[in-house]
Amino acid sequence: MIRIGLDIGGTGIKVGAVNEQNRIVAETSIPTRTDIPFGEQVDRMAECVRELLNPETDPELSMDRVVSIGAGIPGLANHDGVVINCTNLGWHYTPLREEFRKRIGKPFFVDNDANVAALAESVAGVSAGSSSSVFVTLGTGIGSGIIINGRIWKGFHGIGGELGHMILELDGVPCTCGNRGCVERYCSATALIRMAREQAAAHPDSLIFSLAGGDPMKISAKTVFDAKREGDPVAEKLFRRYVSYLSQMLASLVNFLDPEIIVLGGGVSKAGNLLLDAVRSEIPRYVLYNDQPLPRVEIAALGAEAGIIGAAMLS
Amino acid sequence: MIRIGLDIGGTGIKVGAVNEQNRIVAETSIPTRTDIPFGEQVDRMAECVRELLNPETDPELSMDRVVSIGAGIPGLANHDGVVINCTNLGWHYTPLREEFRKRIGKPFFVDNDANVAALAESVAGVSAGSSSSVFVTLGTGIGSGIIINGRIWKGFHGIGGELGHMILELDGVPCTCGNRGCVERYCSATALIRMAREQAAAHPDSLIFSLAGGDPMKISAKTVFDAKREGDPVAEKLFRRYVSYLSQMLASLVNFLDPEIIVLGGGVSKAGNLLLDAVRSEIPRYVLYNDQPLPRVEIAALGAEAGIIGAAMLS
Repeated sequence: MIRIGLDIGGTGIKVGAVNEQNRIVAETSIPTRTDIPFGEQVDRMAECVRELLNPETDPELSMDRVVSIGAGIPGLANHDGVVINCTNLGWHYTPLREEFRKRIGKPFFVDNDANVAALAESVAGVSAGSSSSVFVTLGTGIGSGIIINGRIWKGFHGIGGELGHMILELDGVPCTCGNRGCVERYCSATALIRMAREQAAAHPDSLIFSLAGGDPMKISAKTVFDAKREGDPVAEKLFRRYVSYLSQMLASLVNFLDPEIIVLGGGVSKAGNLLLDAVRSEIPRYVLYNDQPLPRVEIAALGAEAGIIGAAMLS
Repeated sequence: MIRIGLDIGGTGIKVGAVNEQNRIVAETSIPTRTDIPFGEQVDRMAECVRELLNPETDPELSMDRVVSIGAGIPGLANHDGVVINCTNLGWHYTPLREEFRKRIGKPFFVDNDANVAALAESVAGVSAGSSSSVFVTLGTGIGSGIIINGRIWKGFHGIGGELGHMILELDGVPCTCGNRGCVERYCSATALIRMAREQAAAHPDSLIFSLAGGDPMKISAKTVFDAKREGDPVAEKLFRRYVSYLSQMLASLVNFLDPEIIVLGGGVSKAGNLLLDAVRSEIPRYVLYNDQPLPRVEIAALGAEAGIIGAAMLS
């Protein structure tokens, strides 16, 4: 039995075959093209799936053995397999399931990439075996995927999981969504970089400034963590501030939803134990019942594979 | 078939028998006593249940027909029927289920009163027939109960549903919990009254001030709504501000959890359509996917009966 997962991104589409042990047994990829009509985009994806299934190299890889095909997209899909919105691919109310099934007549599922990653981690990753978890990607923006009773909870209308656009500060920093004070503006990599640039510009004697070669525009999240590890006081202060924001957001999640485990992914999570130790020690401060057992907080384990594995697991 | 519900409050304990149509068919109450040992408190409750069951007045009301007994408490209970914390009753790690079953050997369940009200509304109230809902009490504090797939979601560790202590403003108004900027400090009746007192003191010519007889300490949530209905500009501005806070909080809930329906209860919800129309028109502004169908927002329908009905429904 084989499940196919498509990880559809803005620049590339990864396609993998996943076995019953939730391992990727074959993988390929094609560049994303937005200069062709939707029908041709789907043709290319279906063709890619067919090429992956080469029983001559591996008898397991036959179309007969494929039970389902799933796709993760950087956007919104409804319960009927229609992509409501996916800016990077230019899709808007696009019937992906319907079109894909015309090419390959297998059960087809599509969901948001954060939901897909949440599912992958909860079955084959760091939250494996848990029945409830929230996966939070700390990247350019903030996405999240909620798993309850072992299944993705995308909301009744399919618009949930947008943790990045919960309000963390009334009348706060303006957000790309048009509102002010969204979580994303305080807890994403983008937010950390914005704060670091301000601090570096104000402190040209800081290690953050010199690590970025004197150009605040070259600062990344990693610059901050590297400078903090070296003991730079400006980076240390910035790190504390970021951890405070992130911990207040995660503690809010605990106070409201209390999942078994919270999984951190995305670029910022590459800071690993430096970040993990800090938020683990800070979160309880903001949790109402902090004398009780609290959700574990962990770093995602599957990395880039989560996109294919989780998509293949969709049902 | 009869289920018994106990609505255990700080001043009184209401006990009711609920039939298969989720209607209260018999009801009684006793004052809450905290001056006696826990064992005697449970004796009194069990005695009250027995007195309610009088087959001579109604043959349906026999202990034989009771399938379960449930209790709602203003506090925290775990999945094993132990009350972790219930300040008003002086309970701390108190084995309520175990002690109750020694007196009456029926299945016994206990849960937080907001969870109980959420369950009641979702089965017999305004959210009846929905599979997912969030019940929010806008009272002295803010409680909430989450229903997912028809069942109470109290969190994996039993500490969820504390919407009132999510952060709405970083470094905001100090909260009784020790943190700053909790939802409760902006969206509860207490918060509205606090803001109204400040405004009344600053505007002795306002209707709010005169409706309170010139004494800001006599201002209630109702004073604000009454003055707003009369067109008082100070009350109008205050109302807009409160609605903005409440709507940003509720929109955050939509962005993250997207339940089928959001139910508002508690003292502030008595403002009815005045409040409802305002938040319904304001919420979409803060919802990311506001071009999609959104959760309905409604006022709780069961009122004080929710405590007994929901407790009886616990399982």
